[in-house]
Amino acid sequence: MPQIPKDRLAKYRVLKRDFNEDKFINLQPIQRGGVLTPEAREAAVEFADGYSVCDWCPPKSARLDKIERPPIASFMEDLAEFLGMDVARVVTRCREAQFIAFATLGSPGDHVVVDSLAHYSTYTAIELARMKVKEVPHGEYPEFKVDLDAYAAKIEEVKKETGKLPAAVLLTHVDYLYGNLNDAVAVGKIAKKYGVPFILNAAYTGGTMDLDGRKLGADVITSSGHKSWAASAPTGILAATGEAGEKLFARSKIVGDWSGRKFGLKEYALLGCTVMGSPLMTLIASFPHVVERVKHWDEELANVRYLVEQLERIEGTRQIGVRPKEHTLTHMESEGFFKASETHKRKGFFLYEELRKRGIVGIQPGLTKHFKFNSYGLPREKVEKVASAFLEIAEEQKLAVS
Amino acid sequence: MPQIPKDRLAKYRVLKRDFNEDKFINLQPIQRGGVLTPEAREAAVEFADGYSVCDWCPPKSARLDKIERPPIASFMEDLAEFLGMDVARVVTRCREAQFIAFATLGSPGDHVVVDSLAHYSTYTAIELARMKVKEVPHGEYPEFKVDLDAYAAKIEEVKKETGKLPAAVLLTHVDYLYGNLNDAVAVGKIAKKYGVPFILNAAYTGGTMDLDGRKLGADVITSSGHKSWAASAPTGILAATGEAGEKLFARSKIVGDWSGRKFGLKEYALLGCTVMGSPLMTLIASFPHVVERVKHWDEELANVRYLVEQLERIEGTRQIGVRPKEHTLTHMESEGFFKASETHKRKGFFLYEELRKRGIVGIQPGLTKHFKFNSYGLPREKVEKVASAFLEIAEEQKLAVS
Repeated sequence: MPQIPKDRLAKYRVLKRDFNEDKFINLQPIQRGGVLTPEAREAAVEFADGYSVCDWCPPKSARLDKIERPPIASFMEDLAEFLGMDVARVVTRCREAQFIAFATLGSPGDHVVVDSLAHYSTYTAIELARMKVKEVPHGEYPEFKVDLDAYAAKIEEVKKETGKLPAAVLLTHVDYLYGNLNDAVAVGKIAKKYGVPFILNAAYTGGTMDLDGRKLGADVITSSGHKSWAASAPTGILAATGEAGEKLFARSKIVGDWSGRKFGLKEYALLGCTVMGSPLMTLIASFPHVVERVKHWDEELANVRYLVEQLERIEGTRQIGVRPKEHTLTHMESEGFFKASETHKRKGFFLYEELRKRGIVGIQPGLTKHFKFNSYGLPREKVEKVASAFLEIAEEQKLAVS
Repeated sequence: MPQIPKDRLAKYRVLKRDFNEDKFINLQPIQRGGVLTPEAREAAVEFADGYSVCDWCPPKSARLDKIERPPIASFMEDLAEFLGMDVARVVTRCREAQFIAFATLGSPGDHVVVDSLAHYSTYTAIELARMKVKEVPHGEYPEFKVDLDAYAAKIEEVKKETGKLPAAVLLTHVDYLYGNLNDAVAVGKIAKKYGVPFILNAAYTGGTMDLDGRKLGADVITSSGHKSWAASAPTGILAATGEAGEKLFARSKIVGDWSGRKFGLKEYALLGCTVMGSPLMTLIASFPHVVERVKHWDEELANVRYLVEQLERIEGTRQIGVRPKEHTLTHMESEGFFKASETHKRKGFFLYEELRKRGIVGIQPGLTKHFKFNSYGLPREKVEKVASAFLEIAEEQKLAVS
């Protein structure tokens, strides 16, 4: 038997986080939308055991989305309706949702047209589906705006090069780098014109902004529960309409060659059931809150714009990406903080450390010239506290503050 | 904006389980090994927020298994060592682990040779990898023993039919239906002889029994954290040695055609990072307990054998599958309880209901002639309580008890 020494195991016994949401204001770009609601925190404890949601799995239609106790079946329907789509399922991650869409909408060797600011996981999902990527260019500094009209040219290019339309086009609704919000309707129209399925990756927008898939022209919506639906990881959302939905959620057709076994109830690309237990239940428990919170996006925009305005009072500091902000994920450039870092004894780490002293975390340690934050879900007084902290640090570093 | 009426949302606010592990003895076959330890319960709360483990993701090698705070990096190493393998990763489910192994060890159109008692998810994973299944037969009632020697003939058959060796052979270490333990060493030897990678699906054995992948001859081990490692769902374990490991955990090679973007650090078949947050942290928190508990498998076998012996005192009741039990997952056949159900006013549901009255759940409601249970992890006094309950119910139903 392989033996692991006891002293090596000791560190696993007590696992503590040091970015506790109660103690710190956390600006981590990927974390703001995944902070649990109190209801979700209770569900996380209640359903923490392994297969805890499977107690009442109906024997004759054994599948996660058929479970009525807890109310998983109705949740899947309500989730689809909330997103303006026909069918919704909870999968393990937004990237898995994308992979399922690619793998079922096309075949190995096919192309997928994506915006060139797509998250890396979009690319690896294409790679795992044994497909090829065709990128839609983005513009230059400081806006980095994706050239949405170019989707048409890129579809044409694929057709010309391969004799075949791409399997799908994907648009990253809000990109991870600049937090630019792209016009899904524009891409939806192009996709429709060519008859190519349109996947909207709503990793930063589903669950925080109001989305109506039908209005946006999306055949598929992917999203991340732990990124923007106040849910535990790992949870992904995969929703679809019409023909795309039939492909994504097709039933298993494999037959055992000796036994004749069949599994015709199972959605094969989901591998049957997906997210059992506590992550799913946190997503469900937060859902009433999420349905409500998307109505208050204007307040979120007011907060982030205020924060940008305050930070730009610091010498050499500007928000990059599209202005004014249309999403709370924000990329700042600061020649000022960079200049300060060059003479500071803690070098580039001073900014992180000074913020942390003031109860603020989530800016990547070591960065000053470029850093990202996300103000999503912070109440106004905390946004003001963040602004004051930055201004105070700037003044301490003898930077000009207008 | 799609609107969900408030009264429809109300049911999601308070989510309660009724099979609470504190209040009931739960015999659910898939649930016993996934009951959390107290340490895991604490970790589940601590890391419940979305991307809670990502606070200290190293910017220059941004990947889940590189995170040292919390101790994810060292855990992955200890996990590999514990399983007697070279590399281990935590993925979202055992079925995803199998899919990754199939997809990276072979190509669409290839065959995978599997035992005919494999779980349905093995088949759907083969289907998603666009591969074909070749089944190794099992024997008849009452043992249903898989004919392990036939792995050789089935490999030959694939070679003869397709001119190519199968991409992999998979053995389900303990099957879901009878709980038969298969001799992995025997299959490992056959696979080695043909030079075909050997995947051991240890969904019911990793985390409960002592496994040494090297001794068993496994190139790949897959397992389920929520099934048998005292972890929250969804958590899968994927471990590999040598060449198989290099294929499974190969780095991304895709390149953006316009941007030139590359993601050479990411393990593409895992889609980059996998299980963030609380399920991973429950798995880690339970690990010291798991390392200890696998040493007590003999006690588990003594318990299940006692329980079978007691249940077989009831007229027309026998354990099916291999005897004596070598695993705690057990399939019972009871002509006696079935006879009682025919005249009982609650029909087949009486058994579930009578057990529940006695604080015992997890036997599928409605079943009497065939039912499954799992005694894993129950202390002896609870096993005795279960035995007494069955005997008492039999006597109440006027069945002969020897």
